[in-house]
Amino acid sequence: MTGRDSGETVPVQVWRLGRDEEDEDVILLRDNAGRVLPVWIAPCEAAAIWLRLEHEQVRSVVRRPMTHDLLLAIIERLGMAVERIVIDDLANGTYYATLHLQRNGEPFTIDARPSDAIALSLRAEVPVLVAEEIMRQAGEVVDEGQQIEPEEGPGDVDPD
Amino acid sequence: MTGRDSGETVPVQVWRLGRDEEDEDVILLRDNAGRVLPVWIAPCEAAAIWLRLEHEQVRSVVRRPMTHDLLLAIIERLGMAVERIVIDDLANGTYYATLHLQRNGEPFTIDARPSDAIALSLRAEVPVLVAEEIMRQAGEVVDEGQQIEPEEGPGDVDPD
Repeated sequence: MTGRDSGETVPVQVWRLGRDEEDEDVILLRDNAGRVLPVWIAPCEAAAIWLRLEHEQVRSVVRRPMTHDLLLAIIERLGMAVERIVIDDLANGTYYATLHLQRNGEPFTIDARPSDAIALSLRAEVPVLVAEEIMRQAGEVVDEGQQIEPEEGPGDVDPD
Repeated sequence: MTGRDSGETVPVQVWRLGRDEEDEDVILLRDNAGRVLPVWIAPCEAAAIWLRLEHEQVRSVVRRPMTHDLLLAIIERLGMAVERIVIDDLANGTYYATLHLQRNGEPFTIDARPSDAIALSLRAEVPVLVAEEIMRQAGEVVDEGQQIEPEEGPGDVDPD
């Protein structure tokens, strides 16, 4: 698909982090319409996201800033701000994301894996957006109360 | 100790990456005098370092840029350069490091875990330095031909 740098996007929440039946880490992103997008990610980035989703109590056990904390510290130290992250492409079963940053009002973008982008977004507390075309292609509608299992997601998406 | 921001430093090579007898990841840094400093690190950062120590052949299997590649991409995209990294403190069994960056000749520093700093240094191809006081305190002299085992290192240093 060619959703990159163009087209409609929808905001999503980082809804669940878990493992599929093959023990692969998967993160579920949900939009306001209840559509859920499963994104398979690597274990280290899953840990980075998990640490941030959990409460302060858990985080306090991990004494030292992790790699994505360092990433944000460098961005902020350089006078930059993270504005949002966008999952904006899906090609050959792999998702791609873009970090949208700005410095003194001047925007610029950097390519990233969705897992790094999400781990950063949780630390910077900025919106996560997904291209509408990706949501249409790979999202699933989840009824209220329905428990989606990660293994119900499309099976043709590789972990990044 | 109080080696930070002052005192003599010595250049080291990233010599070995392995596991101690308790299966903890440890990186061995060696200076020109043959002194070896063991630094225990967490598994994700060990993987990031391992990927960079291996040859292109191995790296080509990992298709996507990893978190420390993103870190370097952001630094460079912002017109910064990494100059060196320094392991400059050891307190209560924990090592501390500093990233030395510069932009337009203006230097500045950012605190980091030694593991993140080393993973970044291998990508930026910049020197790794260790405070001489730390080398004296925690380094071990290794004879030519002697095989140092990571478990021979001081046991009072925590993984970061």
